[in-house]
Amino acid sequence: MIGKNTIKLIKSLSEKKYRQKEKLFLVEGDKNVKELLESDFKIEQLFATRSFLERNPNLEQAKQIVEVAREEINKASLLMSPQNALALCLLPEPKPLPEEMDSLSLFLDEIQDPGNLGTIIRICDWFGIKQLFCSPGCADLYNPKVIQAAMGSICRVNVWNTDFLPIAQTALKSGSIIAGAFLDGENIFTEKLPEKTLLVMGNEGNGISAGTAALIRKRIKIPAFSSEEKKAESLNVAIATAIICSEVRRQNHFPELLKMQ
Amino acid sequence: MIGKNTIKLIKSLSEKKYRQKEKLFLVEGDKNVKELLESDFKIEQLFATRSFLERNPNLEQAKQIVEVAREEINKASLLMSPQNALALCLLPEPKPLPEEMDSLSLFLDEIQDPGNLGTIIRICDWFGIKQLFCSPGCADLYNPKVIQAAMGSICRVNVWNTDFLPIAQTALKSGSIIAGAFLDGENIFTEKLPEKTLLVMGNEGNGISAGTAALIRKRIKIPAFSSEEKKAESLNVAIATAIICSEVRRQNHFPELLKMQ
Repeated sequence: MIGKNTIKLIKSLSEKKYRQKEKLFLVEGDKNVKELLESDFKIEQLFATRSFLERNPNLEQAKQIVEVAREEINKASLLMSPQNALALCLLPEPKPLPEEMDSLSLFLDEIQDPGNLGTIIRICDWFGIKQLFCSPGCADLYNPKVIQAAMGSICRVNVWNTDFLPIAQTALKSGSIIAGAFLDGENIFTEKLPEKTLLVMGNEGNGISAGTAALIRKRIKIPAFSSEEKKAESLNVAIATAIICSEVRRQNHFPELLKMQ
Repeated sequence: MIGKNTIKLIKSLSEKKYRQKEKLFLVEGDKNVKELLESDFKIEQLFATRSFLERNPNLEQAKQIVEVAREEINKASLLMSPQNALALCLLPEPKPLPEEMDSLSLFLDEIQDPGNLGTIIRICDWFGIKQLFCSPGCADLYNPKVIQAAMGSICRVNVWNTDFLPIAQTALKSGSIIAGAFLDGENIFTEKLPEKTLLVMGNEGNGISAGTAALIRKRIKIPAFSSEEKKAESLNVAIATAIICSEVRRQNHFPELLKMQ
């Protein structure tokens, strides 16, 4: 079973100060924990039902494994719909910043919604983006809502918390273009977007901050297609990130391959 | 002030059965209510702070206006961060299905997350999609979480709840192609996507149901660009909807307009 103190510990991990004090973070859900078991993260304690353990016999990653009933997980879970597994993981040490920029990489300027950050990590995974940089004011990577929305992609995308300046410098040294999404930028469908791009996306309400914007060479936008005078003022930031990453990959991998029909 | 019974009524509107019983739905937040005031929806009661009423003098739409203190709204609100306005609106009568399909339109097959549905409505608004069809099992359009995520776009996108068959028939009669997003479809970047398309998107966990799939002529997918063997298994359905709608518009409006640089 899961002891009272452990349940208290688990619940406390929704807050950053307790994650830092305990040097632990929480991963929940069958798919998330399954991917975690195949990753480099260190699992201190794994609580799982027998059915989960039978489906996932590869448990070397977990220091301690506790088989529990589903009701036990329900009690400890932070989720609305708890599942069959819950893991307490060691908070990893921050990695040093990379010296070289990958072809397409991403800088997030003060993205505050944990769901948006998690969804963006999943988008990075899909579009093969390995380097994701987050400004110090972004949602915390180890917030359980970020982990949840990332659906296991946190195991495959490298995330750093960093100011923009050193990243901008590395991008320029690596020959990458620094592009930022603005409401008044150049149309992404008519502008050439090289694969060597550091893409900057801004805060949900305020967009890219002035300090960050000053270092951006290329201002781009997703054109709206509404014929009406009144229309949506903006797209959600995760949606906008997905459309731009998709267009960068399309231009460089499938520039003119439309089949004739 | 907002009376106890009204607060109870407001809170009850998070549930569909009470929305249907009271024939009311709830709209919250400055931007949402501002757009509502400029729409065709009928507002039974508007609760707003003086500052909101001063900023929005155009109040003919509201049958009854009650100026309240911010703390009153805090008590009644369903939001984590309540704002300056809250409106009770008449649930509109269902509209008859359209006889003709617009150029690009969308059918959602059992999209269950209200946040996803709201985000998709906002995407429709951006990409000028006026016809959005939802299968009977989709999240309810008037769920406050849908309204919230749609950020006012609910005032500009027409939404119908309907089975797929009559919509598929109308699409074919109108000369539209019926395309559906599958994990094993044709690459959207090499496949010609005509603007006259009825795009079908499926449930978060299970994709498009077999019954709906049987009527789909064109199976499409968003290619993944991860070089790794292990990668994200899918994209969030709102993200995938945005990428496909964006690509349809790009192919038809900016097919080969990349500037030489």
